Amino acid sequence: MPSIKVAILGFGTVGEGVYRILQEKREELKKSTGFTVDVVSILVKDKMKKRTSITDVQITDDFRDILNNPTIDIVFEAIVGEEPAYTYLSDAIEKGCHIITANKKMFAKHGPALMKHAEFRNVQVGFEATTAGGVPIIRTVTNLLAGDRVKRIQGILNGTSNFILTKMRNEGSSFKEALLDAQQKGFAEADPSDDVTGMDAFRKLMILSSLAFGQQPDWDEVPVIGIDHLQAPDLIDASKEDYRYRHVADIRLNENGKMQGTVGPALIGVNHPFFNIDGVDNAVIVETEYLGSLTLIGPGAGMYPSGSAMIADLLHIIRQHEAVLIPN
Amino acid sequence: MPSIKVAILGFGTVGEGVYRILQEKREELKKSTGFTVDVVSILVKDKMKKRTSITDVQITDDFRDILNNPTIDIVFEAIVGEEPAYTYLSDAIEKGCHIITANKKMFAKHGPALMKHAEFRNVQVGFEATTAGGVPIIRTVTNLLAGDRVKRIQGILNGTSNFILTKMRNEGSSFKEALLDAQQKGFAEADPSDDVTGMDAFRKLMILSSLAFGQQPDWDEVPVIGIDHLQAPDLIDASKEDYRYRHVADIRLNENGKMQGTVGPALIGVNHPFFNIDGVDNAVIVETEYLGSLTLIGPGAGMYPSGSAMIADLLHIIRQHEAVLIPN
Repeated sequence: MPSIKVAILGFGTVGEGVYRILQEKREELKKSTGFTVDVVSILVKDKMKKRTSITDVQITDDFRDILNNPTIDIVFEAIVGEEPAYTYLSDAIEKGCHIITANKKMFAKHGPALMKHAEFRNVQVGFEATTAGGVPIIRTVTNLLAGDRVKRIQGILNGTSNFILTKMRNEGSSFKEALLDAQQKGFAEADPSDDVTGMDAFRKLMILSSLAFGQQPDWDEVPVIGIDHLQAPDLIDASKEDYRYRHVADIRLNENGKMQGTVGPALIGVNHPFFNIDGVDNAVIVETEYLGSLTLIGPGAGMYPSGSAMIADLLHIIRQHEAVLIPN
Repeated sequence: MPSIKVAILGFGTVGEGVYRILQEKREELKKSTGFTVDVVSILVKDKMKKRTSITDVQITDDFRDILNNPTIDIVFEAIVGEEPAYTYLSDAIEKGCHIITANKKMFAKHGPALMKHAEFRNVQVGFEATTAGGVPIIRTVTNLLAGDRVKRIQGILNGTSNFILTKMRNEGSSFKEALLDAQQKGFAEADPSDDVTGMDAFRKLMILSSLAFGQQPDWDEVPVIGIDHLQAPDLIDASKEDYRYRHVADIRLNENGKMQGTVGPALIGVNHPFFNIDGVDNAVIVETEYLGSLTLIGPGAGMYPSGSAMIADLLHIIRQHEAVLIPN
């Protein structure tokens, strides 16, 4: 049976999720695609760290070990931050590898360039896991675009913010208390500023904007407000009136053909699809010309949801490039 | 530019929607697929009826005109009822045509046989429009299946029932009044029994069952209850307690590997994704092993939503069979 060789860059929550699913679903993947998928190399920060679950895989802290391995077909990237991730993926594309990324910070900024580069080299870029975790919003919008036209996208795109708002409303916690709880539960980073200032949601919105409209607004012209100034009593008062505060990212093309984006807290009424999105879930509403309004709700992050989004990208790439992936 | 020739069986709301989108999006489709898509034949009941909007298309009331046309690549079917739709599609597959259907009654029963037949003849079957109208639940579950495992599917699958329940709750209307309003607005058929007895939702559930689990439960073992015995005061009382009645179809594989399905009214709490699905919308929750729980909400029916679901199937078929569709 032909084999597809993959490398994983970064072995945090998401990278490990990809590795685990590839092991657990080895037989199913073989059956459904006709390929075995073999992880041959994993790029880590500290290669001395004990990883008892991994066998028969090169563990390296030098990306050149991966770049110089001519057998690798596909590179999964689950590093945090713009660099060196962008350079790594750029090099991988140049070498003719397909890439699958979960790195929203890198992709919001460098996604358009990577896509062009990949087109030129005739390889694919999977980025489902960059936006809304396990919610298949990238694939859904991609499918819609060919025969329909997207008019607007709104989303609850940051699970940490949504968890904090939910806790403040339900338990009357202060922002600080709720944030601490999110950190203790592993939903928020030690430095949570990207989440609570709205920057993380903003970046995901820019990824959706590139996808749906083929362009991004001028970043400076998008007002970005976080949840860090909301007070518990305001949330509880709103709740009594059948409203809830949600942190909403919103992008549309206005009548003059100009991109308009906003990111910030919004009061949501009881009949709105965002009303009952609690905890770390994400939700996205896509408005199109023909379909009307489509809402997707699901887990915003996590080892298996994000890993499973990357595996969905893998399957898509295999289907598109089946003939080429059979080794010569 | 290579051309794809299609026929449309049935020219009611959905058939006309397909025709209109193909005309309106002609240039976009050309650009995104590299093909022109030409409607060459439409099967109607009454070919004498004036249809001023249609030009350069054969209008026929004899399916043999379509079957004997060797240029046709793809057959869209938007007829109501099991027969003659099943025979027509079976004949079309035998001739080597891809088929795209919106016919849930036919597909719930004959879908498995059509799929096998199509596999044998190496053609595709699109059935996105059979279930939940414009909600891309078929494609989403199909994509999930390769690398994940579906454990349960629940849905609000009948827009007419949901419209009636919404009106009874909001306005205190009786079932009869609400049904009459649905009929006047064009949401319910002259004979609404399939909708209000739950049979329509049951059939869609069987289509989802075949897709997600590769099997259907014994039809006789699925309890099917409609909304036709619910009373407005019950709905209003529930609403005061922050509950709403929804008509829910539910299918899962239990621990013994046996299919378990139910269709009927259910009390839904304020934090459930089905709570705020009002009017003619549909909603589906898919629970999987890796992703967790994914919810999709959108228009359950209508000319453009259903038409657009069929066009999405068309695009998928074009992508899968690009090489074969280029005429020799």
